[in-house]
This record gives sequence, C-alpha cells and structure tokens, in this order.
Amino acid sequence: MPQSDEQYIRDLVATWMQATIAGDIDRIRPLMSEDVVFLTPGQPPMRGREAFAAGFEKALTRMRIEPSSEIQEVQVLGDWAYCWNHLTVKMTPLQGGSPTQRAGDVLTIFRKKPDGSWVLFRDANMLAG
Amino acid sequence: MPQSDEQYIRDLVATWMQATIAGDIDRIRPLMSEDVVFLTPGQPPMRGREAFAAGFEKALTRMRIEPSSEIQEVQVLGDWAYCWNHLTVKMTPLQGGSPTQRAGDVLTIFRKKPDGSWVLFRDANMLAG
Repeated sequence: MPQSDEQYIRDLVATWMQATIAGDIDRIRPLMSEDVVFLTPGQPPMRGREAFAAGFEKALTRMRIEPSSEIQEVQVLGDWAYCWNHLTVKMTPLQGGSPTQRAGDVLTIFRKKPDGSWVLFRDANMLAG
Repeated sequence: MPQSDEQYIRDLVATWMQATIAGDIDRIRPLMSEDVVFLTPGQPPMRGREAFAAGFEKALTRMRIEPSSEIQEVQVLGDWAYCWNHLTVKMTPLQGGSPTQRAGDVLTIFRKKPDGSWVLFRDANMLAG
C-alpha cells in the first residue's frame, strides 16, 4: 500500500529530528527545497538550503542539539501541505556548562516535488528560551 | 472581471490593518475562521475567533495599535493559501508615555469558504520588540 502524503510528512519531520541529533546535515539537506526560507523572531529571513546548512554546521562546532517534536496538525492541500509542530530543543555546550532549552510552536509549509517526495519550503519558528 | 484569489487575500490583509488602526473588531471578526489559531513566541496557542476578539478589545483599552505591512509572498493552493508578511506594529499607550514598536515576519494560512470568501486559519507571528 502506498504511503500517504500525511505519513510522508510525519516521517520527514522524524527524520529531520534524528538527523539533527546525529549532526548529519547530509541527511537533512534533501528534506528541504533549495529555495527554502526560515523565519524566526528578531532575525532577518534565512534564505536557501546552503545558508541553513552553513548555520547548522557552525552551531554543531559549539553545541549538541537535541530536538523533540509533538506534531499538532498536518494538513495536505494537494501538492502543498502545512504542519503545526510543538518543538523542544535542548542545547548542550561542547565546552561544558549547563544545557539550555528552548520550546515553542513551528508552522511549516511543505511542497510535493514532481517525483512524489516532499520538501520543507517555508518555516516559521517561534521557539523562545 | 472577477477578483483573483491572490488579490482577495491582499485586500483581506489591508482590511485587517485598517480595522486594527480603527479599533474595529466587528470588521476583523469575519476575516478569520471561527476555529482560527494564533501562534506566537513564548505564549500558548490562542484558539478561536472569540479569544482573539477578547484579547484585541482588552489591548485597545490600554493602547492605540498601528500596524503596517509589507507582503513578501502570497501563494494560492486551490482552496488554501499562505501569505508571508513583514509586519511593523506601533503601540501608543493611551495613558501617555512613549510608543513602542515591534517588527517581524508573519506566516499565515488562509482557507477559502464554500461562498468564495477567504478567512485567516493559522497565523505564526514572529514579531520581536
């Protein structure tokens, strides 16, 4: 039986979380559109897959990142979908010191590619410390 | 010529801004779904049109709210759409004192109703002070 689009997106989110914990940017890269945009409070939009990858790799030189997610809603709208997720991210400095934690809601828009796979396209991240 | 869905959404956003400046919740109420959800950093989700209306009316007893918006992107996906907006909101205390300003990105999901009108459905607000 073919996988449903909703299940595809739930699996994509789970893979993203696991790959983040593993620090594996090569596994995360194909999960997003080349022209993805990440929106966060107090920062200009982060545009493009490679900008994300560079930021991720830089962060990994300083800390271990352990996200966990509770998906609140997934809606598939033809070749588009959105997911409302509640995310908790624990960050542990590699140099020692206490871990910090941020939590909050994330609203993400996904697009279906012609080959049937889904990619992250727009991401609104409302995590607070 | 019938109005395009994209123009409908742009007009909805403009109406929302004008009605906010005018403090006119009765004009804002029909622009959102009854089961709308507003997501913001550091707060639990605000669920439902009446919760928004109550919060808006309470805020208006304390301040004048003047938003301005620069729409970055509107995508219509059949009976769904999203809008990425950059919002600046000036808040002036009614009791006197200096105005404060918050700015940031907003990612909003709209739904088309069976009568052809659009309503705000999910809203991710990343305004920072």
